[in-house]
Order: sequence, then structure tokens, then C-alpha cells
Amino acid sequence: MTGKPYRQNSIRSLPTFDSHVLETYLDDQRELKNKVYSMFRGRPDLLPETVEGLSKEEHRSLVRRQLIALLEAGFNPLDFFSHDVRKYFYLGECLALVDLSLTVKSGVQYSLWGGSVVNLGTEMHRKKYFDDIASFRLPGCFAMTELKHGSNVAALQTEAVLDLMTDEWVIHTPDDGAIKWWIGNAADDGRAASVFARLKIPDTSSTHPVPGSGHLRPQVQLIDHGVHAFIVPLRDASGSLLPGIEIKDCGYKVGLNGVDNGAVRFTHVRVPRTNLLDRFGTVDKGGCYSSPLTSQARRFAATLGELTGGRVGLCCSSVSLLKGAMTIAIRYTSHREQFGPPDSPEIAVLDYQSSQTKLIPMLASCYALHFSKNFLVKQYSEMKKTRDPHLVEEVHALSAGLKAYVTHFTANALSVCRESCGGHGYAAVNRLGMMRSDHDIFQTFEGDNTVLLQQVSALLLKQYKSQFKGAPLTSSYRFLGQLLASSLPSNPLVTYDTDIRHLRDPVFLTSALEYRTARTLFTLSLRLRKHRAKLGAFHAWNQCLNHTLNLANAYIESVVYKCFLKAVEECLDPDCRRSLKALSDLYALRCIESDMLFRNEDYIAPAKAKAMQRLMVDLCSELRGVAPALVDAFAIPDHILRAPIGLSNSTGASDVYKEYLLAAGFDVV
Amino acid sequence: MTGKPYRQNSIRSLPTFDSHVLETYLDDQRELKNKVYSMFRGRPDLLPETVEGLSKEEHRSLVRRQLIALLEAGFNPLDFFSHDVRKYFYLGECLALVDLSLTVKSGVQYSLWGGSVVNLGTEMHRKKYFDDIASFRLPGCFAMTELKHGSNVAALQTEAVLDLMTDEWVIHTPDDGAIKWWIGNAADDGRAASVFARLKIPDTSSTHPVPGSGHLRPQVQLIDHGVHAFIVPLRDASGSLLPGIEIKDCGYKVGLNGVDNGAVRFTHVRVPRTNLLDRFGTVDKGGCYSSPLTSQARRFAATLGELTGGRVGLCCSSVSLLKGAMTIAIRYTSHREQFGPPDSPEIAVLDYQSSQTKLIPMLASCYALHFSKNFLVKQYSEMKKTRDPHLVEEVHALSAGLKAYVTHFTANALSVCRESCGGHGYAAVNRLGMMRSDHDIFQTFEGDNTVLLQQVSALLLKQYKSQFKGAPLTSSYRFLGQLLASSLPSNPLVTYDTDIRHLRDPVFLTSALEYRTARTLFTLSLRLRKHRAKLGAFHAWNQCLNHTLNLANAYIESVVYKCFLKAVEECLDPDCRRSLKALSDLYALRCIESDMLFRNEDYIAPAKAKAMQRLMVDLCSELRGVAPALVDAFAIPDHILRAPIGLSNSTGASDVYKEYLLAAGFDVV
Repeated sequence: MTGKPYRQNSIRSLPTFDSHVLETYLDDQRELKNKVYSMFRGRPDLLPETVEGLSKEEHRSLVRRQLIALLEAGFNPLDFFSHDVRKYFYLGECLALVDLSLTVKSGVQYSLWGGSVVNLGTEMHRKKYFDDIASFRLPGCFAMTELKHGSNVAALQTEAVLDLMTDEWVIHTPDDGAIKWWIGNAADDGRAASVFARLKIPDTSSTHPVPGSGHLRPQVQLIDHGVHAFIVPLRDASGSLLPGIEIKDCGYKVGLNGVDNGAVRFTHVRVPRTNLLDRFGTVDKGGCYSSPLTSQARRFAATLGELTGGRVGLCCSSVSLLKGAMTIAIRYTSHREQFGPPDSPEIAVLDYQSSQTKLIPMLASCYALHFSKNFLVKQYSEMKKTRDPHLVEEVHALSAGLKAYVTHFTANALSVCRESCGGHGYAAVNRLGMMRSDHDIFQTFEGDNTVLLQQVSALLLKQYKSQFKGAPLTSSYRFLGQLLASSLPSNPLVTYDTDIRHLRDPVFLTSALEYRTARTLFTLSLRLRKHRAKLGAFHAWNQCLNHTLNLANAYIESVVYKCFLKAVEECLDPDCRRSLKALSDLYALRCIESDMLFRNEDYIAPAKAKAMQRLMVDLCSELRGVAPALVDAFAIPDHILRAPIGLSNSTGASDVYKEYLLAAGFDVV
Repeated sequence: MTGKPYRQNSIRSLPTFDSHVLETYLDDQRELKNKVYSMFRGRPDLLPETVEGLSKEEHRSLVRRQLIALLEAGFNPLDFFSHDVRKYFYLGECLALVDLSLTVKSGVQYSLWGGSVVNLGTEMHRKKYFDDIASFRLPGCFAMTELKHGSNVAALQTEAVLDLMTDEWVIHTPDDGAIKWWIGNAADDGRAASVFARLKIPDTSSTHPVPGSGHLRPQVQLIDHGVHAFIVPLRDASGSLLPGIEIKDCGYKVGLNGVDNGAVRFTHVRVPRTNLLDRFGTVDKGGCYSSPLTSQARRFAATLGELTGGRVGLCCSSVSLLKGAMTIAIRYTSHREQFGPPDSPEIAVLDYQSSQTKLIPMLASCYALHFSKNFLVKQYSEMKKTRDPHLVEEVHALSAGLKAYVTHFTANALSVCRESCGGHGYAAVNRLGMMRSDHDIFQTFEGDNTVLLQQVSALLLKQYKSQFKGAPLTSSYRFLGQLLASSLPSNPLVTYDTDIRHLRDPVFLTSALEYRTARTLFTLSLRLRKHRAKLGAFHAWNQCLNHTLNLANAYIESVVYKCFLKAVEECLDPDCRRSLKALSDLYALRCIESDMLFRNEDYIAPAKAKAMQRLMVDLCSELRGVAPALVDAFAIPDHILRAPIGLSNSTGASDVYKEYLLAAGFDVV
């Protein structure tokens, strides 16, 4: 089918809509959010104009007070985390806009320290620690990363050797490379930690002397059962370090200076045998190791699997920050005027094509990521309830992939928002710089993005292989099964149809994105097989690494678009839906446009590529008028957003500067 | 010609070379740099580990002390700026690595405040102020930007009205939108400023009363001669504000907190008539305005034209910072190990294809931009001597375009370098975050990048039109004349030649990039003409804005590649030259690859595009081995670079952590 070719003249604005209607549609946890926001409304002392002027000590103290205030107001993040995890994530979204250090500090205490006790320990550990962790009476750490090992957790070097005589673990840092590094809560507050260490048990069957194999029993060989988590007290009630514990402050960071990260060295620190968090592997008094899981690899996977909640949380707060930045940038560029036709008033910065091309597709992605993180939260919450193994696998891939995709996107978007707000975007008070500096490490922690994307691809390849064996596929990539069942289907993109209805047809857009994923998976699989024969698995993988990352990206984008599309279809208000539909089209078109694959190998007809590009420019132009309403629907209260140039009460070009002038100390009438 | 198709197996490493040989080739001002660096080596008090812990007051005081120390050591930046501008720019490069705030503070004092007096004033002004500005006895400001007007300088609202009775200018801020904003040196140090204001003279010929046309002579109409610069004292010798001057501190910024930016409001401030910087337009005692230039537009252009030096300086310090960040990232990722084949040692992060794909092309661009900024400095310096009008135009386009291109590239590269260094890249002590935060505003100040790129395209379009009238073209786009003389030449990219010799042939790469520029110019010109008829010039321009920005980008990249190619050809050491050649190939291929244009309209044969992509991956792999030597050649001393993870004395994987452990406070044997 070829219809009327798309022409630029057909641009028109989308119908306006009530942003409150869209707000309600976006978000089913308004009540919780409103409670958090109104708690902070009553505490202006907790909401300074900027934190740039604070020393790290002052900033940490502020964040501590914010956290305590939350607890005093009746919020119980550990309870949310353990019993109603959706609330935990929504709380994190709110806190991210207050101060990202607060989200991270709270995440360290509840999702990491609390989460490791709850999820890796047993009932005994929960009983003993839950209340004290929840109330922050026992601030704690998650001591996994070491100086030399971040991503490669399996290679951690810290040791936990069982002393059979005293029934204790001896926790020890064997060399400087194994010093625990970047440990949140460690520099100031932490009184205990979940320490990840190699569990080693003397091999009582061995009697031959082993030179230098440890100071405890030099004659006895140690059996290494791999990395496990142990509860290790760090400080006494007065805050003094316990014997054998050495902690240094990691100092200033690029951002998140409200979090007290420390470096921890253990020197033969003794803790009771029962301090092993032993849900996936336990050791009895006689030093006998047992586990419900059959291999070290499985135990390790189960242990790390319990930490996916952290990644879900990162997605949520990253999207939340993105909404904040988009709100500031869209509002400011809608009001800021510069240049114009001769003898006419100046026009708004957002009326320039270049600004629209930067900001509007970003707004489309912001919406796409909002619905996707909601989907992830739902799936994660479902998985915690059902423990369905397929869902576990899907949530692992989805949380890893979305975490990488979202945080990478947000990191870039924050830079673009700053730049789009020009000089005034550089004022600390307008918060875009701090947002970027704080958020930056989201690309690295809880799994480096490059490593996580490889995990996604590895899972897809595994599924791809499984399907040949008749194994069922998990839901979000069921389409792969259909597409790849026999051979590759015909490519929907090479048809020369440039009609606008076709280009905006969800069936076309969905099939284009799914085709890309399937095709990338198919070709990657072939290439890996080819190289593996010659180079071995590791080097073959490295030889195809860019391809692997492309696959993960393609997969995530097809899932994200699907989430977005579902949200468009379910929106009942016709005007809101038209805007959402335009955003979703723009999102999908950008995904298609940005991929080399579509253009290098005749995947896309040139005339069609050109028509898509024109359509994107026009969609940006159509959406420009509703852009302010689209950010209003994020409903971030002014006292939380704070940026003077991005407040909701700026009703016209003259007002946008008022708060900003006041912030600089000028009297304004 | 079609030859042997390019195959992955042919990858080999480039021959190693002596980095000192390359260092010498890169840089002909080593002596000056060594003097600056050794001055700082003797002053560790001026080189704190980080500035993140300093309040803005402490940071400003540090930068002031650094600046004074330079003067005391005998450096005279204003003298460099006025008499040997290449030295001025090289000095700026060194200072950028010490602290970017120092470069900017020095730039405000010497290039902006000093430069406006030197270049916009006359001999009388130079005599009166030169020595005091040079010695920092008279710290000053460049008061151009207003709250509501940054890019659109012609629309500034501050007024300078001549009072004929007292022979004085009355400088006044008519409304809050006209408050001077972001004025460097204003918050603390500035004792005077070049204030940009609309020069208005009472029209003595008019006698009819004009309601509310000014408080001075309500009966007399004022003639607006447009924006001019006036010297206005701000503070007395004791540092107290003078009458009518109100200054607020602009507060914390995203970065550059060592610079004291302020907002200035003038209330009927009187200065002598001779305080007008009147090189391009003067007013006599009788209120008669005269100028050697025939129109207001020309005077305005001449005035702004004198400020191009600032942009040249920004290019230099931006490239310098890029070199610093690349040095840190390449050294760290060459040593940092993570994962590896089973039962084998871990491999360096830079051995992963994904890291190479991120960092090596960036290193290629860094080299490309190094040679380009040298070319710009040479052209600028030549222009200052000869005042050749064609050179003026070329330097304007080149400085505007390179400033936008370089600062945009560096801003993104700094983010990628931080991310590539993982968690340890997030430690403030490793400086990548501060570099990014400080540098960020380089994209905005001294001309917003989006605005500058439009100026480049406007000049190209003007040249394009001129050539039809037989006017001579300026040198760097002479190729356009050849290419466009009659009609577009055949596209070199559609040939199906995928031979590696062809793909790395400078003749092919040059013609591909030049073809792109010519083609973009040609099509833009057609589109503008089409839209202008219907929409008028302003809206037609906006309708084609993305296209316009693409043209500027294409032009800059073709110039940058040409500079790089020349540098490759002139390098006498064969081993260095081979590395430079590989980098230049990679640079050109990336430019081709990144451009939609080449792929949307059959501009490039699919098989060729694929061969190019493979070649790029292989070039990255070939260059990986010499990458550390390539950053060593930047020759940034350890005491200047400071980042513990990026020091030159890290001879192996074990050493890279030593300084870092020490910085965190651990004892290291």
C-alpha cells in the first residue's frame, strides 16, 4: 500500500488537554507521593536552595536529618521493601527529587543492608536485625565492592575463614586490592555491614602441611566455597571502630556527597559462625557446608539474584530525576525568548527547530521510560510473590537492561537539559548540574551498564538456544520465538511505503523494532559460533562485543516501546491519548533512526528513511504546544523541584525570572 | 578499482614509538609550558588535591592566589595577549589543567576586560589602563550579558545616555531584565567594567515633547546608536561599591566556583564622555556621533569581531582539558583489569572491544582537534597582524565553528571518560567530574554553540552566493568553489570499492568529507530559497535549522580533517606517522559514519558502509597498543594532572592504585 506521501505542510498542533487528567493516568500512587511531599513542605529546613555550598560533613548531616524526618513522619522504608515493594520504589522516586543522596543513603540502609539481611539471611537474622535496621538504630553497609574488583564480583578476595575451635569466622583483607571500597554508610554512620567474602573451611580430611596457606592452621588446607555474605559489626554504640576494623573516608565524590562512602580493611576480625547469611548455603558447627542449591555457580547466581531490587530502584529514581530535569528545561525554554523576526517580538527558545529536536524526543523517551519502569516494578513485585522461575529470569534481564538503558539515557539527557537552559541552567540553584553529578554514578553502580547489557544478551542467546529444544520462552521475548521459529521473516522496513498512516502504524513500528532484535540475535549467534571455534568463548565474545551490546539495546527498546504502546491504548481520555500516541510514535521512530543496522544493509528504503526523518521533525513541532502540559502531568510540586527557572507558577515570559531574581538577592516588586 | 576485501584477520598492532619524539612534534611551545609547570611544582599550596571541599569563597581565594603567583613569577598575560597572542593561548592551556577557574578568571581579566580596552578603545584608554590591568591592580569585568539577553546581544537594554550639560554618560538599567548577569570578577574583585549599553544621544534638532522618553531631558528625543562599550568604575580602592552600583553574587554554579560571577544593576551612574571605548564610533563634546564605519550593523560586527580571541582561547583550553581526561582514562583502563578467560589472569578494561570503541576514536578526535586549534591560533595570530578582510571572515567562521565543535565534543568526552573509569572515576580526587562541571558552560558562553554554528552556515551561504558573482573565496573553503562551480560532482562514496587501501586513502576521505559539505550547502541553499518565498527569511531559516547545523558541522569536520592530514604528512618520524595516520583515518571514517546524510539517500554503498565499520573496529584494536604512548605525548606532568589513577609513573597493574590508596589515607609500603 502506498498512499499520499508525507508533506511538511500538514503540521498542526495537538489538542490541549487537562494535565491533571494525565497526571492521574500516569501514576497510581499519588497518595503516597503527596504524603511525602507534604511532609517536606512542613520542613523547609530540610530543603536548602542548593547543596553546592555545603561541606560533605554538612551535606551528610542534612541527609541524615532528612532520613530521620521520614521515619519520624511514620514512613517505614524497610517495611515497604519487605512487604509492599511498589511503595518502596515510589518513595525512592520522591526522595530522588528532594536530594539523590537521600535516595542512595536510604537505598544503602534498606535495600542493600536491610535487603541482604532479609533476602540472604534466614528467619533468625530477620528477627534479630529487622527492627533496628528499619528504625536506623542500626545503620549498616553493603560491603561488596573491593578496590580491585567491582564488576567481577566472583573474583572478590576478602576472606572468611572458619575457626573450628572457636566456632567463628575470621574476616580478613588479604591485600590492599581487597580493601572494601565505596561502601555507603561506612565513613560515618555504619555500625555493621553485610560483608561479601570467600567462605573458606579447613579441610579436616587433609593433613599434609601447606606452606603459607593462612595463619590459622598452617597445616590445614582450606576449601573455598566462593563468595558469601556475613554480618560484621563495625562500630560500637558510641561510634568507635571495633578491633581489626580500619575505615577511611572515600572523600569527595563527583556527586552524592550526602552519602558517607568509606573504604574498609579487615584484620582478622572474628564474628560468630551464625553471622553467615545462610539462606543459600550454611555451615554447621562441625564445619560441614550444605546448600539447597547444587553448585557454587547457582548459589552465586541466587545470591546476586536477590539484589535485582536495587536495580529496579535505580530505574525508578533515574526516571524521576529525568522528569524533574525535563520539567525545568521544557518550562524554561517555553518562556525564555531570544531573537525573532525583524521588528517583531522575540520567540521562545523552544520554538526553534534545534531546541525541539533536542528536547521533544527526550520527553517522548521520558514517557516511554515512565511506563517501562512501572512495568518493571509490577513484574518485580509479581516475581517476589510467585517466585516463578521464568519470571525470575525475565525480571533479571529486564532490570539489568532497563537499568543500563535508563541511566545511560538520563545521564545524557541531564547534560542536554543543562545546555538547553543556557547560562541560567548553569546556576547551581537551578539544580541541573547537581542532578547530573549525583546521577552520573548510576551508570556504574549496582552493575556497570556495559556489563549488565552483556547479561541481557547472554540471556537472550540462552533463550534462543533453548527454543530449539522446545523450552517455553518468557513472555517479554516471546516474539523472538515467533520471528525466529524457522527463519527470518521479511523485513517490514524495506517496503517503499512512505505514507504517514503507515509510518505511524503501531503494527509497523512494533514489527520494525522486533525485526531488529530478532535479526541482531540471529546474526550475533552466527558470528559467535564462527569465532568461538577459533578464539574460544571468551575472546569470541569480546570480538563480538559491540554486536552484543547492540542486541541488548535493540531488545530493551522493543520492550520499552511495547510498554508505551500498551499505555497509549489503555488511556481513555482522547486528547491525552493523542499526545501519548504522538510521543510513542516519536519514540519508536527515533529508535529506528538511531540504529545503523537499519541503514547499512538495505534494511530501510532511502525514501522511507527520509520520510521518517521529516515525520519526526513534524511530530516535534506538533508536540511543542502540549509540551508544558506534558511536564505539568509529572506533578512535581514547586517546593520539591525548587529550580527558580522551572517553577509551575511561571505564567508568562516575564514571570520566569522572578524567583530567580529573588534567589540572587534582588528585591522584586 | 576493487581490491582484496577487508578482513578482520589482518589486525596487527602499530609499531611502538618514542613518546618524546611525538611530544616534540605536537608542540612548539614546550619552553613556556615547562616554565609554567615548574612554577607550580614549587607551589604545592596552589595545587590542592581537590577543590570539591572548598566553599566558593575559599575557591575564589585560591584562584586569586594562583593568578597573583603567575604574575609574580613574571608571566604577563595581557602583554602576551596584546603582543604575542600564541603565548597567551598556550598559557591558557596550561592553566586549564591546573584549575579551569584560573583560565576563566584570567580570561575575564585579560582577554575580555583587558581585550575590550585594548581592542575597542583607543591609545588614550590603553595608556591609562594597560599597566593596571596587566598587574591586576585594576581587576575588571566584561559586562555584556543581561538577565534576559545572552545570545541576542543586539537586543541589550542597558542604556548609556549622554548628558550634554555635564559631558557625561549616564549608565542605567531600565528594568530587571537588563540587569547584567554572570559578570565574571564582579562579585568580589572587579573595580571597573566594560559595560555594553545602548549609546543614546539627545536629538538637539528635535524640540517636540516626547512623553516618558527618559528622565534626563523629558522634552528631548534620544537617538539610539546601538550597543557600545563604556568603562564604568564599580568599586573604590577599598573595595566599596560606588554610588548607583548594586552587585549581587550569582552564587554557586555547576562548576567554575573559583570565579566570582556577579549580577550588576546600574542606577543613573555617571562616567566621563571619554569613557566610551570609541575605536569604532566616537562622540564629541557637542554630542555629535561619528564613526569610520558606515552603518550600525558594521560597527556592531566590528565590535563583536574583536572578541573572537575569546573563542580561540576556549578552543585551546577545551582541547587541553580533553587531553587531560584522555590521559587519565587511557592510562587507567590500560591498567585496570576485570574478568578474563577461565583460569587465566584478568584482562585490562581497554582490551575490551566496547572500551576501545568508546575511547580510541575519542583519542583520534583529540589529536584532530589539537592540530586544528593550532591551525586556528596560527590563523588568528596572522589575522591580528595583517587585518586581511578575507582572513577576518575566515577566522570568524573558524573560531565560531571550532569553538562549538570542540566544546561540544569535549563535554561529551568528559562524561565518557568518567564512565570508562568506573567507580574510581567518580572519586573527586581523580578530577574527571570537576573537569566536566567546570567545562560544561564552555558550550554556552562566548557564544552559545547552536548560535555559533548558525553563524558558520550563514557565512558559507554568503560565500556560496558571492562566488556566483566572481568574488574570491577564503582559503579554507576554496574547495567549495571547485566542487560547486557548475554542478555537484559525482559522489565518491557510492563506488563499491571496499579495499582497505581505498578506504584509508586520504584522497578518498578528503573528497568524501568535502562532498558532504558541498552537497549540504547546495541542498540547504535550495530549501532556504523555497521556504523564504512563503515564510520570510526568519521562519525559513528556522524551518531549515537542523539542516543549517548539519552544514556547519560538515564544514568544520572537513577543515579539521584537513588540518590533521597536513600534520600526518609533515611528521618525519615514520613510526609516529603511522600512528597519526591511523588516528586520522579513524577520525575521518567516524565523521562519515556518523552522518545520516551518507546513509539515507544512497550516498554510500551498503557493502562499503559495512567495510568501513569493520575497518574502524580494527583501527581501534591496532591503536590500543600505542594508546598509552599517544597520551604520554601530551606530556602533562603528574603534579599538574594530579589524578592518582592517571599518573605517568604507574608502570604496571599493581601500581595504578598506590597513589590512590595514599590519597584515601591508607599506609602503603
